[in-house]
Amino acid sequence: MIPNILFAARPEQWDIYEKPLKSALSEAGVTANLALDLAPEEVDYMVYAPNSAVQDFTPYTRLKAVLNLWAGVENIVGNQTLKVPLARMVDHGLTQGMVEWVTGHVLRHHLGMDAHILGQDGVWRKTIPPLAEDRPVTVLGLGVLGQACAKALRGLGFPVTGWGRSARTVPGITCLSGDEGLRTALQRAEILVLLLPKTAETENLMNAERLAMLPKGAMIVNPGRGPLIDDDALLAALDTGHVGHATLDVFRVEPLPPAHPYWAHPRVTVTPHIASETRPITAARVIIENVRRGETGAPYLHLVDRAKGY
Amino acid sequence: MIPNILFAARPEQWDIYEKPLKSALSEAGVTANLALDLAPEEVDYMVYAPNSAVQDFTPYTRLKAVLNLWAGVENIVGNQTLKVPLARMVDHGLTQGMVEWVTGHVLRHHLGMDAHILGQDGVWRKTIPPLAEDRPVTVLGLGVLGQACAKALRGLGFPVTGWGRSARTVPGITCLSGDEGLRTALQRAEILVLLLPKTAETENLMNAERLAMLPKGAMIVNPGRGPLIDDDALLAALDTGHVGHATLDVFRVEPLPPAHPYWAHPRVTVTPHIASETRPITAARVIIENVRRGETGAPYLHLVDRAKGY
Repeated sequence: MIPNILFAARPEQWDIYEKPLKSALSEAGVTANLALDLAPEEVDYMVYAPNSAVQDFTPYTRLKAVLNLWAGVENIVGNQTLKVPLARMVDHGLTQGMVEWVTGHVLRHHLGMDAHILGQDGVWRKTIPPLAEDRPVTVLGLGVLGQACAKALRGLGFPVTGWGRSARTVPGITCLSGDEGLRTALQRAEILVLLLPKTAETENLMNAERLAMLPKGAMIVNPGRGPLIDDDALLAALDTGHVGHATLDVFRVEPLPPAHPYWAHPRVTVTPHIASETRPITAARVIIENVRRGETGAPYLHLVDRAKGY
Repeated sequence: MIPNILFAARPEQWDIYEKPLKSALSEAGVTANLALDLAPEEVDYMVYAPNSAVQDFTPYTRLKAVLNLWAGVENIVGNQTLKVPLARMVDHGLTQGMVEWVTGHVLRHHLGMDAHILGQDGVWRKTIPPLAEDRPVTVLGLGVLGQACAKALRGLGFPVTGWGRSARTVPGITCLSGDEGLRTALQRAEILVLLLPKTAETENLMNAERLAMLPKGAMIVNPGRGPLIDDDALLAALDTGHVGHATLDVFRVEPLPPAHPYWAHPRVTVTPHIASETRPITAARVIIENVRRGETGAPYLHLVDRAKGY
């Protein structure tokens, strides 16, 4: 029987994904019926975006797997009506885009580019930054994205400390875990990159106490999740200059409201959630590969550990 | 006999280099007399900066080698009174600093960072750049610095074309040479990095005709030499938008005069010759290694080919 794939994301996503998904099916030699509208009891696979209209999975009695279009799963992972495997998006484009955005903004802060971009006033101010080898960078979060960014930064010469919930070994990276490890990782972070998932444990991780552990003038780059940061504590640390700059790509409310103090703060750069964006062509291939695996009985790729929440 | 090393650079450089050079002598186990002032006929080695008061080498009858403090040698290479080997500075810090500045500014242009750095106006403008793999970069000049930058950019995912005077092979880089190769290299350059030496052939290489070969909106990054660019032609190409942006670190006259149109042009970023700066500690080791080689009869490192001019 030909499997039925429900595209359970907003209709405007259908315009973007219909063609890449059909191409990916054809490339993979998988025959399937892909549609925006199917009777729940006939759905075998669900291509899912967290803001989908589908929030109750109970009627989907034949469902084999939910294939998330994005990396973030916090809005679905706790859904008690979901009983089947959930796969996150681990897209080549998603990881590569993140690595480019993170290395670019870390280099921007390392080199002090803003002084030149914003200060074309005819004054020749010759200040030489240290070499990357003398600029310690810490990456919080050593999942797929965190590891990829840590390795790219190491490749450019930065000494990189990585911290994650569980102890890990990543070649070239000083890996720490636990509360004491977090303190050490923050104390040495001239540039701090946040790439943790949003869980109950990571919410407001960067509160006033942890911000105070950073060396004076540290720069924060957050392409992870908005709630990792206590916004009021960060604004206070920016006001005193204890935190030298924050480049923020993710926020509790998006789009960030025009009146939010981040927009106006001279030590903040807001970017509009662009660090890592699913690229339809590469993402469609990942989704269809999981359909192929489901149909041939092979193990799914990129499954979410629902007990851990990510 | 203990060799005499004349420090033939401006006195303010002596304040910077005296201690690192003496440390490097001690580290290398070389006994020598290093001084700011020596009788010409007693000088064995000369640590040289191109803006030195020494321009006539004739009185230096015992001179064994001139050891340049910087990478650029255009102001000394044609000096007919210089008859002994001339070594350029090939400093780990010089190369690494250049790689960091070039990768940083290429990523800045690739990601379109300036729109966010300059435009914190409360408007959420979500534009996703292509991946680096879809952003062709061309590096003109495949010397030590050009190759190091080309490899670092390739490592970040950019397809990199390199062009040099002589045919070369660099793993992962599409290497071109000759006039036809230059045309091809320019035609595909969404971002162009200039790392050629200044010679009679490279002066004004980027004139109106060559700028017109670039794809519309191409971005130019010049950390090489100011005279590689015909300034009037570049300003004209920036005015029409044919060249989308130019980030310039080097100029015909430095410091760039406050009234120069580059400072005021909205499509130009001036940086104050900081892309590659000799770091005293690492540079001093390179200089003293050549003194050690001279004293033990080993071949000098980093010799300039004076016929080619670099």
